[in-house]
Amino acid sequence: MAMECYIGFLVLLVAALLFGFLSVVFTLIWVLHYREGLGWDGTALEFNWHPVFLVTGFIFIQGIAIIVYRLPWTWKCSKFLMKLIHASLNAIAAILAITAVVAAFDFHNTMKIPNMYSLHSWVGLAVIILYVLQLLLGFFVFLLPFAPLSLRAFLMPIHVYSGLILFGTVIATALMGFTEKLLFSLNNPPYSSFPPEGVFTNTLGLLILVFGALIFWIVTRPQWKRPPESTPILFQPNGDAAEKVDVSTAISVSHNMDKSDSELNSEAAARKRNFALDDAGQRSTM
Amino acid sequence: MAMECYIGFLVLLVAALLFGFLSVVFTLIWVLHYREGLGWDGTALEFNWHPVFLVTGFIFIQGIAIIVYRLPWTWKCSKFLMKLIHASLNAIAAILAITAVVAAFDFHNTMKIPNMYSLHSWVGLAVIILYVLQLLLGFFVFLLPFAPLSLRAFLMPIHVYSGLILFGTVIATALMGFTEKLLFSLNNPPYSSFPPEGVFTNTLGLLILVFGALIFWIVTRPQWKRPPESTPILFQPNGDAAEKVDVSTAISVSHNMDKSDSELNSEAAARKRNFALDDAGQRSTM
Repeated sequence: MAMECYIGFLVLLVAALLFGFLSVVFTLIWVLHYREGLGWDGTALEFNWHPVFLVTGFIFIQGIAIIVYRLPWTWKCSKFLMKLIHASLNAIAAILAITAVVAAFDFHNTMKIPNMYSLHSWVGLAVIILYVLQLLLGFFVFLLPFAPLSLRAFLMPIHVYSGLILFGTVIATALMGFTEKLLFSLNNPPYSSFPPEGVFTNTLGLLILVFGALIFWIVTRPQWKRPPESTPILFQPNGDAAEKVDVSTAISVSHNMDKSDSELNSEAAARKRNFALDDAGQRSTM
Repeated sequence: MAMECYIGFLVLLVAALLFGFLSVVFTLIWVLHYREGLGWDGTALEFNWHPVFLVTGFIFIQGIAIIVYRLPWTWKCSKFLMKLIHASLNAIAAILAITAVVAAFDFHNTMKIPNMYSLHSWVGLAVIILYVLQLLLGFFVFLLPFAPLSLRAFLMPIHVYSGLILFGTVIATALMGFTEKLLFSLNNPPYSSFPPEGVFTNTLGLLILVFGALIFWIVTRPQWKRPPESTPILFQPNGDAAEKVDVSTAISVSHNMDKSDSELNSEAAARKRNFALDDAGQRSTM
């Protein structure tokens, strides 16, 4: 990567980390300073873990998990190690998200507040279920070495697309959650009279939007994509002879292969498909 | 495009049109059946144009504007005609969105309700301002024939990225708007008791999310991208000799050029940059 390009990446990464970190800090200030604080007793103290765990795990950590392959200083690490980091960060995010939902349900049940009636709760529950399915799919298909290369090649663009749609939907769900909580909690003075808590939490919503936009920019720039592996394929775990290609060919076309993740199923990419399958094979090289 | 690929596109397009159309119908049923109906008198009747115009213009029409280059039967039309359609649909969406905001302000002012205190209003106003800027930038840089090709090539990936981020943010803003409106309006019985209007409008939110997800899928599949122009460049309006390339070269590398919109600024793409500049030239060929 050219120095100019590397500095551009660093600037965007630092900006994303800053906005992500500020989002977590703002969430903590919101619940500790403006709300009741934190606890685990079925009261509002327990509910307040809901935004803290979700902004920390489902927004900040998930955002980092999405761009972890793009950190240039990890390109010398094995793809397997990077997949393990990607999967671990997403697993931590899922655990925090599920705990956050438990906190909300506990609070509702203690306070005799109905569950699952709002659009926030419908979209939020759907997104957590789909996120766990995505995590399981990623674990069994891309991390474990058993899935056939054709399946990996077919599922990769769907995995990437689903991940980004889920991340965007999580942010939309958070903004609905802030809206609900501010309308429920701010009565005297009301949200409509611009109380400090309202302005502060609106600002938190904007910080999260900017964080999301930076993650989307970083993850969609082709020049910041991890280069394909350049080591020869010595071992293919699934041993499917039909999917093996000549090693020298695999190396010589490695530049083309790098683009093929998102080009599968296309007529134009059909010619490259054998190379793409081989790329999926390289992805499983540990 | 192969028949298999063409049918795949049609299925996704019909699904997107169906979910977009259903979203508009659900919004109309919401305001006509569950709410007070439509009018322009400063009361709730006027406010009700707010969701109708926004779902119709800022979600459905904007979604179609985003994928209009990808309709295979338009690939024989000139790029200029398609740009005109893209710009016109986005302009209609902007006019409807601005009218929708006027309706909300009128309603608030008549009813002595404060403006611009909620996160929905902050994000919504920001997104409309940025959308109008994006429209002006698109008009002056990509539609009019005066911008230098280097500027077009530099701005194209930013234009595509901004458009998609704005579309996603509009959907998030709509979901916040539904949340607000249901919490304000549903009192007896309350939103938390699962009244038909609450369940119905939550469903509308889900329809819009699916519509958005389908648009994102359609617009990010490389195999459904409009092929580059294959006609020779006879006229370059800005007459920048340094940016002209040999016509025969331009045609022979046309397949590579098609990918370069999103590859600019990259070290790897630097070698293709001259071709990309030429592609931008073709884009302005009428």
